[in-house]
Amino acid sequence: MMKLVLATHNKDKITEIKSLLQELPIEILTFSDFDHFPDVIEDRNTLEGNAEKKAREIFNITGMPSMADDTGLFVDALDGEPGVFSSRYAGENVTYEDNRKKLLDEMKDIHVEKRDAVFKTVIVFIKNNEEKYVVEGECKGYIGFEEKGEMGFGYDPIFYLKESNISFAELPLEEKNRISHRGRALQKIKKVLETIIK
Amino acid sequence: MMKLVLATHNKDKITEIKSLLQELPIEILTFSDFDHFPDVIEDRNTLEGNAEKKAREIFNITGMPSMADDTGLFVDALDGEPGVFSSRYAGENVTYEDNRKKLLDEMKDIHVEKRDAVFKTVIVFIKNNEEKYVVEGECKGYIGFEEKGEMGFGYDPIFYLKESNISFAELPLEEKNRISHRGRALQKIKKVLETIIK
Repeated sequence: MMKLVLATHNKDKITEIKSLLQELPIEILTFSDFDHFPDVIEDRNTLEGNAEKKAREIFNITGMPSMADDTGLFVDALDGEPGVFSSRYAGENVTYEDNRKKLLDEMKDIHVEKRDAVFKTVIVFIKNNEEKYVVEGECKGYIGFEEKGEMGFGYDPIFYLKESNISFAELPLEEKNRISHRGRALQKIKKVLETIIK
Repeated sequence: MMKLVLATHNKDKITEIKSLLQELPIEILTFSDFDHFPDVIEDRNTLEGNAEKKAREIFNITGMPSMADDTGLFVDALDGEPGVFSSRYAGENVTYEDNRKKLLDEMKDIHVEKRDAVFKTVIVFIKNNEEKYVVEGECKGYIGFEEKGEMGFGYDPIFYLKESNISFAELPLEEKNRISHRGRALQKIKKVLETIIK
């Protein structure tokens, strides 16, 4: 059975990814399966750069097919911020809640019709030294004025879908995987994995 | 039928690529099929960076799946030179022959056992805005002391295979495609294209 290492320490991401790839005959390994598994510093200025750096470093250590993602929330009214810096918007070593609070605060005077935002995920899958796959998924919505919902993680409680006005944190994981940025990117990489397994 | 644009003006590369992908049900388009087809400046410091830049620019103009490669000859005794600068080793707007002459001259005092070199090709295939494939192929050999053979192009007449001591310029295209850096990379991307077509 093919092994695949997820190059992340984020347990929420691991849960989402495992959920979506569970039907595939792939053994998914994570940091807890290794003695040495560095926390790669995300210092590139693009999502792809960060995802590539993480996947490459873990591939170099484990020698196994490795996959990493990087996700950003791009808010129109803030010229695309927090973007590639989404996970440390409120500073280093902050909580998801700190980031959400800062974003709500920055946007407190912005009219509901100018709160458009897009979530983007780039996944880099390094199969071996000579083959790499890069996919992107996005999901459009807007930033609400307050938190809603208890599921998900990160910015999910303040990211709302336009059609329904429900937040990502109100969506069960299965439903979120169907329409979210990470879900869409994972569906694409899943097709790649399926053809590789064959 | 799927269309695929080759993001290059190099007719020798086009010949090699068309030859290897001819069995696939893909319509291969080249610069001669378009009114506007820029000659993209290869100013990145990696093969992947240059290939990505070329494929991206042509994809942005044509809106069709686009593919580009970049190739370099990495010579051990020259610390990896000419590498990413192989096509302009002797300067801008030089001929293949100028580059070969400069390389032979730089290496004229280097012993036959220290003339190892590796040809590398990186191919970037941009399927759409959200999916990208990157593959690499390499071929190990050595730099001879003189030119041999009439086929191929570029550094082929001075790049020799160790087992047989024949140069790339002595190989018929079919045989070259089987073992060369570009051939190996193309075989990988061919598999990707086959699964996409299905």
